[in-house]
Amino acid sequence: MASSSSFLVFAALLALVSWQAKASDPSPLQDFCVVDKNSPVLVNGFVCKNPMDVNADDFFKAANLDKPRITNKVGSNVTLINVMQIGGLNTLGISLARIDYAPLGQNPPHTHPRATEILTVLEGTLYVGFVTSNPENKFLSKVLNKGDVFVFPVGLIHFQFNPNPYKPAVAIAALSSQNPGAITIANAVFGSKPPISDDVLAKAFQVEKNTIDWLQAQFWENNHY
Amino acid sequence: MASSSSFLVFAALLALVSWQAKASDPSPLQDFCVVDKNSPVLVNGFVCKNPMDVNADDFFKAANLDKPRITNKVGSNVTLINVMQIGGLNTLGISLARIDYAPLGQNPPHTHPRATEILTVLEGTLYVGFVTSNPENKFLSKVLNKGDVFVFPVGLIHFQFNPNPYKPAVAIAALSSQNPGAITIANAVFGSKPPISDDVLAKAFQVEKNTIDWLQAQFWENNHY
Amino acid sequence: MASSSSFLVFAALLALVSWQAKASDPSPLQDFCVVDKNSPVLVNGFVCKNPMDVNADDFFKAANLDKPRITNKVGSNVTLINVMQIGGLNTLGISLARIDYAPLGQNPPHTHPRATEILTVLEGTLYVGFVTSNPENKFLSKVLNKGDVFVFPVGLIHFQFNPNPYKPAVAIAALSSQNPGAITIANAVFGSKPPISDDVLAKAFQVEKNTIDWLQAQFWENNHY
Amino acid sequence: MASSSSFLVFAALLALVSWQAKASDPSPLQDFCVVDKNSPVLVNGFVCKNPMDVNADDFFKAANLDKPRITNKVGSNVTLINVMQIGGLNTLGISLARIDYAPLGQNPPHTHPRATEILTVLEGTLYVGFVTSNPENKFLSKVLNKGDVFVFPVGLIHFQFNPNPYKPAVAIAALSSQNPGAITIANAVFGSKPPISDDVLAKAFQVEKNTIDWLQAQFWENNHY
Amino acid sequence: MASSSSFLVFAALLALVSWQAKASDPSPLQDFCVVDKNSPVLVNGFVCKNPMDVNADDFFKAANLDKPRITNKVGSNVTLINVMQIGGLNTLGISLARIDYAPLGQNPPHTHPRATEILTVLEGTLYVGFVTSNPENKFLSKVLNKGDVFVFPVGLIHFQFNPNPYKPAVAIAALSSQNPGAITIANAVFGSKPPISDDVLAKAFQVEKNTIDWLQAQFWENNHY
Amino acid sequence: MASSSSFLVFAALLALVSWQAKASDPSPLQDFCVVDKNSPVLVNGFVCKNPMDVNADDFFKAANLDKPRITNKVGSNVTLINVMQIGGLNTLGISLARIDYAPLGQNPPHTHPRATEILTVLEGTLYVGFVTSNPENKFLSKVLNKGDVFVFPVGLIHFQFNPNPYKPAVAIAALSSQNPGAITIANAVFGSKPPISDDVLAKAFQVEKNTIDWLQAQFWENNHY
Repeated sequence: MASSSSFLVFAALLALVSWQAKASDPSPLQDFCVVDKNSPVLVNGFVCKNPMDVNADDFFKAANLDKPRITNKVGSNVTLINVMQIGGLNTLGISLARIDYAPLGQNPPHTHPRATEILTVLEGTLYVGFVTSNPENKFLSKVLNKGDVFVFPVGLIHFQFNPNPYKPAVAIAALSSQNPGAITIANAVFGSKPPISDDVLAKAFQVEKNTIDWLQAQFWENNHY
Repeated sequence: MASSSSFLVFAALLALVSWQAKASDPSPLQDFCVVDKNSPVLVNGFVCKNPMDVNADDFFKAANLDKPRITNKVGSNVTLINVMQIGGLNTLGISLARIDYAPLGQNPPHTHPRATEILTVLEGTLYVGFVTSNPENKFLSKVLNKGDVFVFPVGLIHFQFNPNPYKPAVAIAALSSQNPGAITIANAVFGSKPPISDDVLAKAFQVEKNTIDWLQAQFWENNHY
Repeated sequence: MASSSSFLVFAALLALVSWQAKASDPSPLQDFCVVDKNSPVLVNGFVCKNPMDVNADDFFKAANLDKPRITNKVGSNVTLINVMQIGGLNTLGISLARIDYAPLGQNPPHTHPRATEILTVLEGTLYVGFVTSNPENKFLSKVLNKGDVFVFPVGLIHFQFNPNPYKPAVAIAALSSQNPGAITIANAVFGSKPPISDDVLAKAFQVEKNTIDWLQAQFWENNHY
Repeated sequence: MASSSSFLVFAALLALVSWQAKASDPSPLQDFCVVDKNSPVLVNGFVCKNPMDVNADDFFKAANLDKPRITNKVGSNVTLINVMQIGGLNTLGISLARIDYAPLGQNPPHTHPRATEILTVLEGTLYVGFVTSNPENKFLSKVLNKGDVFVFPVGLIHFQFNPNPYKPAVAIAALSSQNPGAITIANAVFGSKPPISDDVLAKAFQVEKNTIDWLQAQFWENNHY
Repeated sequence: MASSSSFLVFAALLALVSWQAKASDPSPLQDFCVVDKNSPVLVNGFVCKNPMDVNADDFFKAANLDKPRITNKVGSNVTLINVMQIGGLNTLGISLARIDYAPLGQNPPHTHPRATEILTVLEGTLYVGFVTSNPENKFLSKVLNKGDVFVFPVGLIHFQFNPNPYKPAVAIAALSSQNPGAITIANAVFGSKPPISDDVLAKAFQVEKNTIDWLQAQFWENNHY
Repeated sequence: MASSSSFLVFAALLALVSWQAKASDPSPLQDFCVVDKNSPVLVNGFVCKNPMDVNADDFFKAANLDKPRITNKVGSNVTLINVMQIGGLNTLGISLARIDYAPLGQNPPHTHPRATEILTVLEGTLYVGFVTSNPENKFLSKVLNKGDVFVFPVGLIHFQFNPNPYKPAVAIAALSSQNPGAITIANAVFGSKPPISDDVLAKAFQVEKNTIDWLQAQFWENNHY
């Protein structure tokens, strides 16, 4: 019972915190601290299992990162391998992702509150960019081809777009946290549960309230699985 | 000359990095490391002046935080006292702000990439909230009265709104970095220089390209001074 | 029962660790880790509650920071809002305080072992200062008026004094830790339980043993509530 | 001249510190701090260039990570994209590598003193493993196929071996530091300049001194380029 | 029962993680967090006991660091006082050791994955050195006499050797982690359980497989107690 | 000239920051970053010299820690080997000290703002203790004999006293920072330059102003050399 209830807790946490990584995860104080999925105790990061019970499978996942994924409505799919997927990542400050892009698909503007991202293109072409903080809001962008590498600094709004109308694109990205987090801007602003007051958003985005209402009525699909 | 050119560099940096603070600024390695505004050398944070030349004024600013400020188009004004304002804050991981809100004014949805914010209301009433990361995008909100305190966790999108149509509101906020940074969502997404491709934004926000074009033609005023 | 005993543990911890904040609290590994007050497990910081059970009240306190407080024997009162007061502050590296000063009252010489402090004066005037570490022990001081801001670097001995014999003063201070800690020098040195050997203190402070005995017989009132 | 001499300094540093990444690089204090390759000043990490001079190319490298590399004597080639390759990585705590393995080639036992590594196989098969610290020295190993992911905790001795006598293998690895460092065990122990005393090594490795002398006479080729 | 089973867990962890210390242990969030040896919960570092139950003995050990120790096969004995020996060290980032060296004895080449080491010689003479990371693998060495101090940077391979054939030597060393960890190179490479494939090691060390097999058949004694 | 003026700067800094160490110095981003004593640039910690110019002497000091020292007025002498003494300690988070105690001598109540201390007794007996933060101000004390080890947590007021009226005592202490800092309470409070207002101190310490004046007229000798 402890085990099943703690599994629910784990699932709940997993739901809340999925998808993130950053430059300053706290340092490990032992060789490793593999997530104990049966513990009901929640801490910053995760409680560890007994090191005597740790084996190579705790650092492994048959993640199928070589396989194409079905993309969502905006045309992308992020397959993140973070501490929820590999318990051995706990305390170690890194995670890895495969990103699939449909033709003209995008990984829409988002931030990782706890991670810098470094990305390399495996297939196709990507138009990528990020925006600096106030007051400049300078937009830095680049077209990436196969084998190119690009960096998105921690916390800044960034996106990737596949400009090719016929071919998909694929990237491998690494993030500097065991749990980088992702905040898709449109989803967080217009798709939050419950919705943010349309008075606030209408003024913030300089549009009519009914435009906000229309936006809030749309389906804001998460592209991180 | 060195001094005047380095002042320009400082001003440039000041322009780029203004407004932000977070939970894990690196720790100091001496009692203090006051910003040397004349140094042409740029580092993570700032180069220090000779400690023999440091005095109490390096830790002080006659900031007039007791005085009301003129608010901007969206009805707010953030007066931030960070490491650019008080050089003694360098390496010390904190900053402070006064925020003025016009009647029905707001500090629109934004994130601090490098700081958690804790806020108390000095005058009036504020409706505040933040949104959790994907996939939940849960919106947590609260009405704050004079003397109440609220916390906005590092990196999450949040706002404050003055629901009173007649009276202004005032808050004091502290941020957990010497330079917390602020990213006003609407400004960064629709007001970046140069603009982000309207193809990308139209699909990301599920609107027509001409709506994006219209938004990008607006004036996105920064409310942090 | 688990709940009531864990409440005692929490209260005990609260008693031991109240009042402190600093530049390098470990970074969060998820959006937030709100204190679970019912957990019997004690860690560095606090164990988290299930994020599914978290709501806006976990980041809020009706702290009445707008209300004057009764000051103690030395003429001050520090109302600290730290992780004990707002469980949502856990892992986030900041706290906030209102400080009341009676006419001629002071917040006596103390250190925060885990936090830098930034302070602004809301009402009245304050004479403030801090002392650098050995061997200089340089004293930096300043008179602050309403709206002024001052910084006290982490770990250094500092104080605030209201020089006005007729009017109270009020300040808002922020500290760079969820639990900055405070060590009031006189209280820790002369009011510890049990007392430090008077042989040691007489030699350290270059006074007669009976002066130490007299000092140790006084009531050393804490001004942090 | 300043520029050319500082380039030499940079090259010297580059030579000394190449190849490494870890869980706790210090956090950034501004949006980014791109390496200033012309600065003669050396710090922990690197001095930053003026943010006004930063553009997208500072976060980019046409790294050709899609192209096979010639492998060395032990049959591998590590192409690391760290802060020396992309100056924008400075302060951001991550780097990325492509690793090529000849048939029966290996990336021989080594440690990264400043980084955890997460790896995914792009082509072929890898037999991988790491050894825990004293006193257990437990060896955890796994065979990885295309798309699988494995984690090597910071500081532990690990290797990858391509068991296939006919086909090469390829992996993408990410490391949790801007400069993870690599210490190839055999090279550091038997190929150091100058050599370690053979008296010491003979006793440490329980072999005759002439065996050590023979080993020290071999060519210990670095496989990180 | 909880207590006895948790003791086993503690002993298991103790066994796995013994011997290590480093520059960036996470910072404490309260005065102290003394190890609760009865807790079944495992975290990064250790769970704390109730601060009401803490007393001076939690920060103390009658460690007999003044007494000579019997040395092992390679002629040394490291008596480490880390967080396993003094529970009060938890979260505090330091540990201390006495090292005994037989005549011609050595503390063989090893790394501390989580700590820098600083050492002073109490008795005798030591020849010490460390090797930098790839590609230089520069060997820096020094002869130390009584009262001399030397530093071994975190993660680098280093050793100490007593060149005197008649007299023992003694040193005191401090390490910058509550649990620095030690990886004795020969033991981890040739004495792991189970052994690393001799195919891999033969190629990595440029020797015949039967040499590897012979090495793997030796007894690799740990010198850390 | 650059060299001689920078030497003065270095000496000035050395004077200000001498004596300290703590749990969370920022992590190194390369194998080492040895202090460049000729650089006029001051940063958090120190600027590094070219790694090509680094040799074993940068990690070494003939510190004579085996030799007795003359003790000061309160009967002690702290010989600290920190980053000012060994430039190779920069970024590495540790330092080491020998402490001599005259018969009935003491290392008077002090704090290290940036370090935990771990101490072992080489000769004689020590009565040691520390006081917890407000509101408890619990005093934990212990008598230490030769070979015993004790820990003083970061930032807390602590002392060591040699209770033996005939014999000196000697200890080796390690501190968890490259520059731990020391604040001798009596010296900082009563011996600051300029003096703290006697109005403030009289009330804070519950004594007459002329007692404060008398105390401030004494000579407060530093015992850290």
